Amino acid sequence: MKLVKNAAGRFVPTSVNGEKQIPYKGMNKYRPTGNKANPKISTCIDFPSDGNKVVINLREALKKAGLKDGMTISTHHHLRNGDVVTNMMFDTIKKMKVKNIRWFPSASFPCHSHLIKYLEDGTIHHIEGSMNGPLGKFTTEGKMSGTGVLRSHGGRYQAIQDGEVKVDIAVIVAPTADPFGNATGDRGPSACGLLGFALADSQYADKVIIVTDNLVPFPCIPWQIQGNNVDYVVKVPTLGDPKKIVSGTTEVTKSPDRLLIAEYVAQFLEDAGIMKDGFSFQAGAGGTNLAFALFLKEKMKAKNIKARFIRGGSTKYLVEMLEEGLTDYILDGQTFDLEGVRSMRENANHVNTSPFTSYNFHGKGNFASMLDAVVLGATEVDLNFNANVVSHSDGYLLHGIGGWQNCLFSKCTILAIPSFRDRIPVIVDDVTTLVGPGNLIDVIVTERGIAINPKRKDLLKAVKNSNLPIRTIKEIYNEVNELCGGKPNKPKVNKKEVVAVIKWVDGTLLDSVYKVLK
Amino acid sequence: MKLVKNAAGRFVPTSVNGEKQIPYKGMNKYRPTGNKANPKISTCIDFPSDGNKVVINLREALKKAGLKDGMTISTHHHLRNGDVVTNMMFDTIKKMKVKNIRWFPSASFPCHSHLIKYLEDGTIHHIEGSMNGPLGKFTTEGKMSGTGVLRSHGGRYQAIQDGEVKVDIAVIVAPTADPFGNATGDRGPSACGLLGFALADSQYADKVIIVTDNLVPFPCIPWQIQGNNVDYVVKVPTLGDPKKIVSGTTEVTKSPDRLLIAEYVAQFLEDAGIMKDGFSFQAGAGGTNLAFALFLKEKMKAKNIKARFIRGGSTKYLVEMLEEGLTDYILDGQTFDLEGVRSMRENANHVNTSPFTSYNFHGKGNFASMLDAVVLGATEVDLNFNANVVSHSDGYLLHGIGGWQNCLFSKCTILAIPSFRDRIPVIVDDVTTLVGPGNLIDVIVTERGIAINPKRKDLLKAVKNSNLPIRTIKEIYNEVNELCGGKPNKPKVNKKEVVAVIKWVDGTLLDSVYKVLK
Repeated sequence: MKLVKNAAGRFVPTSVNGEKQIPYKGMNKYRPTGNKANPKISTCIDFPSDGNKVVINLREALKKAGLKDGMTISTHHHLRNGDVVTNMMFDTIKKMKVKNIRWFPSASFPCHSHLIKYLEDGTIHHIEGSMNGPLGKFTTEGKMSGTGVLRSHGGRYQAIQDGEVKVDIAVIVAPTADPFGNATGDRGPSACGLLGFALADSQYADKVIIVTDNLVPFPCIPWQIQGNNVDYVVKVPTLGDPKKIVSGTTEVTKSPDRLLIAEYVAQFLEDAGIMKDGFSFQAGAGGTNLAFALFLKEKMKAKNIKARFIRGGSTKYLVEMLEEGLTDYILDGQTFDLEGVRSMRENANHVNTSPFTSYNFHGKGNFASMLDAVVLGATEVDLNFNANVVSHSDGYLLHGIGGWQNCLFSKCTILAIPSFRDRIPVIVDDVTTLVGPGNLIDVIVTERGIAINPKRKDLLKAVKNSNLPIRTIKEIYNEVNELCGGKPNKPKVNKKEVVAVIKWVDGTLLDSVYKVLK
Repeated sequence: MKLVKNAAGRFVPTSVNGEKQIPYKGMNKYRPTGNKANPKISTCIDFPSDGNKVVINLREALKKAGLKDGMTISTHHHLRNGDVVTNMMFDTIKKMKVKNIRWFPSASFPCHSHLIKYLEDGTIHHIEGSMNGPLGKFTTEGKMSGTGVLRSHGGRYQAIQDGEVKVDIAVIVAPTADPFGNATGDRGPSACGLLGFALADSQYADKVIIVTDNLVPFPCIPWQIQGNNVDYVVKVPTLGDPKKIVSGTTEVTKSPDRLLIAEYVAQFLEDAGIMKDGFSFQAGAGGTNLAFALFLKEKMKAKNIKARFIRGGSTKYLVEMLEEGLTDYILDGQTFDLEGVRSMRENANHVNTSPFTSYNFHGKGNFASMLDAVVLGATEVDLNFNANVVSHSDGYLLHGIGGWQNCLFSKCTILAIPSFRDRIPVIVDDVTTLVGPGNLIDVIVTERGIAINPKRKDLLKAVKNSNLPIRTIKEIYNEVNELCGGKPNKPKVNKKEVVAVIKWVDGTLLDSVYKVLK
């Protein structure tokens, strides 16, 4: 495997899984020159005129779809850790004796550790998609036949759209669908909210299979996935465990340190003048983020301020803000709890979005760069504000990128992070894996103070008279290193053996993940 | 111009406007082999990160879009006869001294007779799209430089999708839009309901310009057209005359003959057993069709029957059926009156559709073939049920195809037509222009009786005991010829000079329209 140094100073392979790669060229330096992927033209002659595309089971659908060795099969992760269909699908593929599948999920979860045996026996060749938990560990230990490819949600749309990844068969689980293949995630016993992560797959895959446990007469309204892109529909008894698909409730952090971070973030938005009528923000579903939303809500109410839109992952806290009139819209990418699902079903102003609308960097603009502020997490950040969100300081790849890279394009990107975890400092000399270039990261908020990227002179000026603990990142770094007894140990890895690569939003290679030596 | 005889026995050119053509091969005989059109990959680098794509005026937008001689410019017709933007656009193009434009509207209306001077002076080379009224007359008289190409709504989507027509610049008028280009037709001072006819243009055109008279802050919800496909946004004082965009009311016929036809159609659906719980139908906005919907509504109420869905063009009569619980859904392609617009805005079960969902023959199925019954008009029908909807017996091309060809695929296609117009029989030996092959047309309903296509033995059997005046088409033909004093005169045309061609839903050439000799 030949490695070259990219514009971020990171070493990346020139070729991955036999395909030539473009190293990261620097911010906004790489310009695509080609044309979008162009699937074969279909004809109604080949589809039932009564619109009934139901076939008896998934095996039959895969057979009709022409499944064979070496194909790329995509799935989406809206069922999160409650998904049983993907495991069942690979059990079926194993029984069909098909080998060397490239599995292209929008993310994988601990429930998919079931698939390790198929990675071992050659049913699955490799995974391109976030590898959370057990599959990430398996990959980092060098056990996967191919090289993992991690993309952001937007990068996944871009890769499909641009024809970098040709999906042979997309298997789309749908909590409600009709026999024509129109499908929605916002209702049914396995309701998950929306299906936006499967949009690109439905548009560009050669064959599209809908799997549902709630088949309704045509038309399934709303149709988040359009039946006109669907080849086959399969009814199964259940898509998974609803409790693991969406939690009934989402938990605000109880940690005093994290509550303090959340409060600092909210106050920062207020003091910096970002929180004003018509503003917009995005925050995820982690405990700190939820607490931030609650603090911000109180501040908005106190000052009688209304947001124009909030970007989800939605939770009951965001839904309350919508229903109490504190925002005109929720533009939602995924629903994290049952209230999010209900609201998406009931509120016309709780809007279904997709990586196409929100994140695709190879579109005519996207929503991410319009956000006034976004609050994200990170596993590590360095003194130049470069950040990592996929691996830990021990070298293990344990998290996906999600929409994280895409969100960095907001007008004010804030990483809300504890200054150390398990006595390991989070601010480091050099991130284990570079996932976000520092020139896109504006503010680091820790329980020990807030560091503003020096290039953001406007923000430094805006909070000059604030009582917030504004410090340099070096000050926080020094204090935490002292407290933890020194810098983290360097991970023990083989720098010659790349087990996975990190794509930037434009499809270029930003960094490599190396095999961990035990 | 070389003509060949196609599978329908009609003569069609081998080449039109310099592009090679495929003659009609027979029903479901032509299979596309290629891949869909693939526009250039864009990048967010080239678009403003704050999402503001507004440029000062249409001229500037056209200039930025790279307008030059010989380009294809598309427009949609949701503003119907109230559209002023298309005329203004060609005034601008004329001032920019650009020539030989292929104008690719989804339809044209009498208001566009303004453009005849641009057809004469070479600004517009030719029109591909329905040419209603004055432009049709102009074309039939052989005055257009190029050859007209008429496609159905579904055929237009197919042609763009398949890359048969590459749109250089799409100009999409939008009654409400945001600076990013998200747009909707269901609100604003020029509200027209929906924008589905512009969907393909927004997806596949090289450059997309939104023109609006109601610019709202991001996000414009709903987004019927997605800003992620849009290059420029232009604000203008007005899109047109709201009274001509949608009529305040739609008029039911008062003609006793047409009321009788409408009543026959409704009774036919009842007696043939088509009107039953969960059924579906489509009917347009003509006076006879409106009357039919009213008769059917009474029958449905009397028997306590509920439809699963009704396909619009919506009118207040369909909206009443939805709001009174006589159908679960309206799947709407265009709104014909203000009540249709209101309902689309207010009722979640009044659903925005497009030629992609409903009509595209080169998709993985479409909605049209799922309809239990569709009621259409025609200008002529022959003894083999072949029908014409674009020209009159004098040879003049005066109407567009609309969704008519696409609708023929329903389970029961009914032509509701007077047996004669202006003392000219409608049932003829040979249609002036073949637009719909007779094997897709099941029933002809006239005020003198109902003729069922002999191949539909099931329908003949179903109404065996009905008191409806079921007759052979020949009987009605004979009676009307006698009444009118003979068959219509043959049109005086030059069979060597093709002024326009009629595409079938699969992109092949079904028939030609010839120059009328005066």
